[in-house]
Amino acid sequence: MKIVTCVAPVNIAVIKYWGKSNDELIIPLNDSISASLSTDVMCAKTTIMASPLLNESAFWLNGAKQDMNSPRLARCLKKVRERADPSLPEASWNVVICSENNFPTAAGLASSAAGFACLVYALAVLYGVEGEISDVARQGSGSACRSMYGGWVRWHCQGDSIARQLKGPAHWPEMRVLILVVNDATKKHSSTLGMKRSVDTSSLIGYRAEKVVPDRIRDMEGAIFAKDFETFAELTMRDSNQFHAICLDTYPPCVYMNDTSHAIVDLVHRYNEFRGRNAACYTFDAGPNACVFLLEQEVSSFAGAVDYAFPRVGDGADYYKGLGFERVPIEGGLAETLTPAEQGKLKYMIHTEVGEGPRVLENSDDHLLTVDGLPKALGLVPA
Amino acid sequence: MKIVTCVAPVNIAVIKYWGKSNDELIIPLNDSISASLSTDVMCAKTTIMASPLLNESAFWLNGAKQDMNSPRLARCLKKVRERADPSLPEASWNVVICSENNFPTAAGLASSAAGFACLVYALAVLYGVEGEISDVARQGSGSACRSMYGGWVRWHCQGDSIARQLKGPAHWPEMRVLILVVNDATKKHSSTLGMKRSVDTSSLIGYRAEKVVPDRIRDMEGAIFAKDFETFAELTMRDSNQFHAICLDTYPPCVYMNDTSHAIVDLVHRYNEFRGRNAACYTFDAGPNACVFLLEQEVSSFAGAVDYAFPRVGDGADYYKGLGFERVPIEGGLAETLTPAEQGKLKYMIHTEVGEGPRVLENSDDHLLTVDGLPKALGLVPA
Repeated sequence: MKIVTCVAPVNIAVIKYWGKSNDELIIPLNDSISASLSTDVMCAKTTIMASPLLNESAFWLNGAKQDMNSPRLARCLKKVRERADPSLPEASWNVVICSENNFPTAAGLASSAAGFACLVYALAVLYGVEGEISDVARQGSGSACRSMYGGWVRWHCQGDSIARQLKGPAHWPEMRVLILVVNDATKKHSSTLGMKRSVDTSSLIGYRAEKVVPDRIRDMEGAIFAKDFETFAELTMRDSNQFHAICLDTYPPCVYMNDTSHAIVDLVHRYNEFRGRNAACYTFDAGPNACVFLLEQEVSSFAGAVDYAFPRVGDGADYYKGLGFERVPIEGGLAETLTPAEQGKLKYMIHTEVGEGPRVLENSDDHLLTVDGLPKALGLVPA
Repeated sequence: MKIVTCVAPVNIAVIKYWGKSNDELIIPLNDSISASLSTDVMCAKTTIMASPLLNESAFWLNGAKQDMNSPRLARCLKKVRERADPSLPEASWNVVICSENNFPTAAGLASSAAGFACLVYALAVLYGVEGEISDVARQGSGSACRSMYGGWVRWHCQGDSIARQLKGPAHWPEMRVLILVVNDATKKHSSTLGMKRSVDTSSLIGYRAEKVVPDRIRDMEGAIFAKDFETFAELTMRDSNQFHAICLDTYPPCVYMNDTSHAIVDLVHRYNEFRGRNAACYTFDAGPNACVFLLEQEVSSFAGAVDYAFPRVGDGADYYKGLGFERVPIEGGLAETLTPAEQGKLKYMIHTEVGEGPRVLENSDDHLLTVDGLPKALGLVPA
């Protein structure tokens, strides 16, 4: 019997992936660049057990049994096994996979990227596969390939369409991320279907991919290498906006940001205007929540502005998640330029930082499966 | 003493104007196509008096005295006078201009286009100027040139950048427009500044103007000529969406649509899905209000769907404006696909149709000025 447990990070793109040139192989229309976030705050966790005693393979996700034959899961399993030494006995054993996110899926944060990265990483450890496997993770969920590395990561659309680390998390240690989780009742659209529809119907997506993104990728790499926050921030905001512009140019349109998202955009621009420089920048994925990148020394001040502009409900218990920070009131001159929203527009905020890539957890307490191959948390996870 | 009173229509673009290639002369980046709406429901009205007895020229807009030396007003006045017979005595007299919109400016509907069209038309009548003057109206407010004609109008970006009527209002007599006025507290941004910022910062606007719009103009002309509502509707929706996509690709972004606007978009697509064809289509200008184009036989049914999806406050008095229509409840099968919004998201709806261009009102009761050159309504218009 073999058992392995791993964690993998969530990643947030600063130059966005939207649209595939090959749906089957999940090859993106353009390169993208992301930051992997600390697994201490948010992560996917996966335990895989392989044993000759298992009657059948099974896949558990957040406490619910999933279809083992889902094409993406099956493809990842097949591809990793193909790279394994065929003489290993475990290559033919059944497997039980148990996967969890330590952050609420209701947060609307991209969980499938971290999840598939964790799955593929754990499979590679299980079967002793070494070397590049981001191309396998990519075939589970496109942006999962970026979660295969820590720090700053570039996913290439050309060649083997692999992800490569640009810089590790220690390169720009002051970088912080505030995730502002928006209260939103509306159902999330599938981003897979959304990007397919964009490729099929947007008149602008091709121009973006061919003419706009290549320069941005070059400039963003330069900004990250030079730790030039001013440039980093402008590129990040422009690219988030352009991604949502492409979604709106889709027919029928895909709309992911809501009025609260746009009010956050407005807050960031007013904050930067007040500072006289780009002190914070936003990026939005296929949902209403904002990821705000900013440097460590700006966190308290910016969070104070958020608290003023988006009054929370209650005393703040469970509202501030992740890394601690000193809470300070908004500066008077800035408050004058803002009109607070109604209470309760934000659900909570998560403070985190750029972190390491996937890793193995050695302690057997960390396994999500019992020795019988059943989820330890079974029955404990709310439906 | 000479006095003339005219009305001019509001126009709604179905292929949008956004961005100038020449700010001074107001030459647009691309052609646009619009419908002029019936002046019986909404119009700008302008009275101009010229008299040797007037001590000074004056300009009244909606009851408030304006700066007579505003560059755009001065330019229109100068250009029309240049085309007048210089031997006319009135060419050297002072003028009093009094202009009003018969629809609330709070509606956020483009009033400057109708206003400048009415001004230039009235000036031309006053000074006996004949022939093409849409190029003068254009220099007051770009899209004003389209309000110089009734029916379906195309504004050309090339040559003299004039507007030309494609078809009169009788060409497609079944066409109706429902304007859904959204309750919105936020201030309107200037569209002049917005489009300038788009030209300066959007990476996509040039591609739209050069590569996307020319084909759409050709196809839209064809759809209007053929009275092909299916194609007309799709082009109208796609172009509205792309215009707002360009606004979002602007840095910092210009956001004109809000959550209610997007809920209207969603309603229209669901309505069309339910009908199995494009039975209605939306277009949004630089504000949150929707203009829905649809054929006469669809008005009652679509308005019933709006009433269901956007429950009004109160008994409906003053809520339904413009042309009458039979009010019917929503069809059950359609209601099942919709979740009603909170009450009061819409302020009111205006039912209108495609109508004639500017015209002179001959009845002296219609003059907005007394024989002394003072606004009749002075003191009666709320501040």
